[in-house]
Amino acid sequence: MVQRVAILGTGLLGASVGLALRAAGFAGSISGWNRGAAGAERARAMGAIDFIVADPLQAARDAQVTVLAVPIFATLDLMEQLAGVLGPDRLLTDVGSTKGQITAAAARLYNTPGRAAFLPGHPMAGKERGGAELADADLFRNAVWLFTDDPAWQRSPMGSALVKEWRELVVQMGSRTIDIDPARHDEMVAWVSHLPQFTATALSALLEEEVGDAPELKDVGGRALREMTRLGASPFSMWRDIAATNTAAIERALLALEQRLQYLRENLRGPALRDEFEQANRFRQGS
Amino acid sequence: MVQRVAILGTGLLGASVGLALRAAGFAGSISGWNRGAAGAERARAMGAIDFIVADPLQAARDAQVTVLAVPIFATLDLMEQLAGVLGPDRLLTDVGSTKGQITAAAARLYNTPGRAAFLPGHPMAGKERGGAELADADLFRNAVWLFTDDPAWQRSPMGSALVKEWRELVVQMGSRTIDIDPARHDEMVAWVSHLPQFTATALSALLEEEVGDAPELKDVGGRALREMTRLGASPFSMWRDIAATNTAAIERALLALEQRLQYLRENLRGPALRDEFEQANRFRQGS
Repeated sequence: MVQRVAILGTGLLGASVGLALRAAGFAGSISGWNRGAAGAERARAMGAIDFIVADPLQAARDAQVTVLAVPIFATLDLMEQLAGVLGPDRLLTDVGSTKGQITAAAARLYNTPGRAAFLPGHPMAGKERGGAELADADLFRNAVWLFTDDPAWQRSPMGSALVKEWRELVVQMGSRTIDIDPARHDEMVAWVSHLPQFTATALSALLEEEVGDAPELKDVGGRALREMTRLGASPFSMWRDIAATNTAAIERALLALEQRLQYLRENLRGPALRDEFEQANRFRQGS
Repeated sequence: MVQRVAILGTGLLGASVGLALRAAGFAGSISGWNRGAAGAERARAMGAIDFIVADPLQAARDAQVTVLAVPIFATLDLMEQLAGVLGPDRLLTDVGSTKGQITAAAARLYNTPGRAAFLPGHPMAGKERGGAELADADLFRNAVWLFTDDPAWQRSPMGSALVKEWRELVVQMGSRTIDIDPARHDEMVAWVSHLPQFTATALSALLEEEVGDAPELKDVGGRALREMTRLGASPFSMWRDIAATNTAAIERALLALEQRLQYLRENLRGPALRDEFEQANRFRQGS
């Protein structure tokens, strides 16, 4: 039924959605808009989108399903702009990393009679560097794609049908879908996604200060150092919005890690060190 | 010239040395001793050693070069026991992760006229889990193999020749050798090796407490979470000795990371967050 998809933001995630839709056999048209012209052109050249639309509102008007694949504040801005423009036969969905504010905006601006449908989504996939040039048709394969949908929303029959079809397309792109409460989502990703990111950022920034003038030390550190600092390459432009829209949960997680590191530091020669290693071992069992 | 090598400790590193020597074309005999009989048998079955010797002192007496591949305190114990047993035509070397105490023991017990030679070594290679079953002939390929040798040591001509030959074998195993002062070594590995390990341990132990009862969350975290906690599987038995023999340097590194995380936490909505990401980005440039 879906014949026309628009992707707003053709960076790593947006362009990967286009490639994955094609790989999954989606035969309709895929249009794209991007803030920077070069990124849109790259996405078109690689076949992630069929054509470029200069105006994001026009792109969404012309498509049945529009995927917002821009940073969170830009997503919220587009949600505001598009709410008055789209009718009840349209679906918007997004790929933002925090879901509290986006899901609240979806309840306020969409998903009521006469309005377009909005399905808040979050594929747990990415790379430490962004850009269409790193896009990958397999990015979502074996990944978890979270939705913070609300059963109380009153969607048009057409909106509900589009939601169902988009969920099926996500499965065809190779992902497993999980539905979760938005507050629980943001708490959870603070632990399993945002804490690892900010830890890698702090560790990388510290090491740049301590050993940045001796690049041969990166070789000395080997695979362990490379892995523990890979996320140090992540772009501020994306993480600024995450930090600003999930601040309290990230603060709690960071404080807990600071305390855990202090405990470890105070017990380097004590029996508690064994307990810490054994508890860490348990987390990795079966991984 | 080296025809007989003994490996004391046929775990991951010891058995990998045996396999790598063979892969590099070493045609002499390789004997092995291990505290647990099963580990020695596994190493023999996979061809990492030719035969098992029940007594480590006997194994070292019979070999020209003996590789100590046991945890640090066990290495120090064997150094004490072997000092009176080996003549000046023997070389001992080790693979221990801290070098201050081992290099001091080497100066005290070896490397003087009439005594065997000792070459303190540290290949920057490993896996998060130990055991001969994970041994790999390519473990040292493209790795850095550090030595904390001392030009003031007065070795016998035979000892000096064996040192030279062992260094050549290390290069043939695929490693790049770097000579470094032992105090500088321990300070450096505290940053690029021990800090990443203890960070992964603290993060894994914390996450086990927070989300350990929801194993599906590990899938949600994806590759980033897997990489940031992979070292959480590291064995306490190895890291206990590292923590105990490099305590002050590790304490400094951990405290610095705690302060860095706190700074990040206090600036999640501030302009300093951009600076932290940019400094972290710099560490990863060219990596």
